[in-house]
Amino acid sequence: MADISQLKRRTRADYPYVLEYRTRWTDNDMYDHMNNSIYNFLYDSVINAYLIEHCGLHPPSSPQYGMVVHSHNDYFASISFPACADLALRVNRIGNSSVTYEIALFEKGQDAVKSVGEFVQVFVDRDTARPSPRGMGLKLRQGLERILVQSRQSKI
Amino acid sequence: MADISQLKRRTRADYPYVLEYRTRWTDNDMYDHMNNSIYNFLYDSVINAYLIEHCGLHPPSSPQYGMVVHSHNDYFASISFPACADLALRVNRIGNSSVTYEIALFEKGQDAVKSVGEFVQVFVDRDTARPSPRGMGLKLRQGLERILVQSRQSKI
Amino acid sequence: MADISQLKRRTRADYPYVLEYRTRWTDNDMYDHMNNSIYNFLYDSVINAYLIEHCGLHPPSSPQYGMVVHSHNDYFASISFPACADLALRVNRIGNSSVTYEIALFEKGQDAVKSVGEFVQVFVDRDTARPSPRGMGLKLRQGLERILVQSRQSKI
Amino acid sequence: MADISQLKRRTRADYPYVLEYRTRWTDNDMYDHMNNSIYNFLYDSVINAYLIEHCGLHPPSSPQYGMVVHSHNDYFASISFPACADLALRVNRIGNSSVTYEIALFEKGQDAVKSVGEFVQVFVDRDTARPSPRGMGLKLRQGLERILVQSRQSKI
Repeated sequence: MADISQLKRRTRADYPYVLEYRTRWTDNDMYDHMNNSIYNFLYDSVINAYLIEHCGLHPPSSPQYGMVVHSHNDYFASISFPACADLALRVNRIGNSSVTYEIALFEKGQDAVKSVGEFVQVFVDRDTARPSPRGMGLKLRQGLERILVQSRQSKI
Repeated sequence: MADISQLKRRTRADYPYVLEYRTRWTDNDMYDHMNNSIYNFLYDSVINAYLIEHCGLHPPSSPQYGMVVHSHNDYFASISFPACADLALRVNRIGNSSVTYEIALFEKGQDAVKSVGEFVQVFVDRDTARPSPRGMGLKLRQGLERILVQSRQSKI
Repeated sequence: MADISQLKRRTRADYPYVLEYRTRWTDNDMYDHMNNSIYNFLYDSVINAYLIEHCGLHPPSSPQYGMVVHSHNDYFASISFPACADLALRVNRIGNSSVTYEIALFEKGQDAVKSVGEFVQVFVDRDTARPSPRGMGLKLRQGLERILVQSRQSKI
Repeated sequence: MADISQLKRRTRADYPYVLEYRTRWTDNDMYDHMNNSIYNFLYDSVINAYLIEHCGLHPPSSPQYGMVVHSHNDYFASISFPACADLALRVNRIGNSSVTYEIALFEKGQDAVKSVGEFVQVFVDRDTARPSPRGMGLKLRQGLERILVQSRQSKI
């Protein structure tokens, strides 16, 4: 992943897929801003929306699903109910059965990014909860490749 | 409240205030539809958004806040992630310090209502958590009156 | 259901099944008490725990599941993180394919009940999401009957 | 933080503070295990319970509060409703105004750790949402020091 000074400069243009999520009353904790745990809820939501709408995932019956094995997040500034959030998604790396997503949260009407994080999912077979020896399915891989962003460093 | 056959015929036009909320991945429970508890989260969100944006409520410091003393809900049909929901709000009754909201949930792009419920809030003083002897403040009352819908029955 | 003055006198002894749930940080909303929506989460949790542990329900594969069609709740007093809650469950009515649960919330170490509500579930076939013509399965019915509490009124 | 092979060998004995949290029905997502986002909810809960009960934090009025600036988590194995979880807490580092917590999740009745993560909080003044020039208060610091675990590496 990029270093933190790079992450703080992220803009919506760095992400090929963006969905708007309205905050909810209980997203705020007692300190009058969205609780840190809610970021992960929203990250997970934009990832799964993309998988369902662009990668053929059908959660009740797909033979494979993505299991999160690692997550991290850096919080730069807060957002509060009733603001709307833009959740921005890209893929940083695709392996044989794993994928690394980068997700950023912006506030509607503001340029500066509020937080950037990564989720690593391993696609496992539904029956065994183990990675498939054949790796992830073709439709899934092609969908993920459409939002893969090669960082400059990794090309060297 | 209206009887259940009336409620099932509710349309967006019966509500003066509507906000769109995108569903989140974890709103779905294991049966592949939004869990019943999430409806209350969304009802509470559209109520509080209205109170903040149109009634002068400022949750960190307002001298009064609304405490929910009763809620009920009828579920007619389900909605599933990643659908978007329209949350529709009206006020059915305003008392000295209490208000009865009616809230309905629709799915983006569909006419038939999914659920209709009511919340009863009592406005209490922040310091005592008891209803103010003076009742609710003027700005609050005026905001609530703007979305008050007098049902035909209650006029008789 | 009983009238509200009766409900306010409910004690743990009125319920055959009780589970302890520790409150979570984000259960509190900005007013320093557990948000009203969280009560439904906890009600749903104690119901489903009972169904899984005593009625043979296996959510990923059971041929029938319970769909909530109505809920209501009366809130008498508040509870705040980090308190522990006791969730108390009984069945008030069993029909051919529907069941009415009554759930109460107590705070660990206190006698007075904080809230009492009811959930009505209809058991539907997983494939059709419609009530089974045969009604609910035997193991399920027997499990629910074990916590059925006949109110005095309904015997008359 | 320790490397991942060390983290996988963590036991309850590595943590001076442990609280039991019962899972809730909606903690499970559609794949029949607790959703990854819920771990952060529980981590945040055990941290805040410790701050309130042992460090003098009083969320509605304390002059300072902890703002999460970074979180990460590694998921080794899953847990499902209706299991009970043990949330285990230690402090890995204390700075002038920041603290690094390590949190682990175990399942009641099982030895192997399910997940280990870290949260970094910066204590800020309530009025400014900026770190206090005086650093964190004494009672807070003393409370955190009581669960500080010096790792062997850091002593060298």
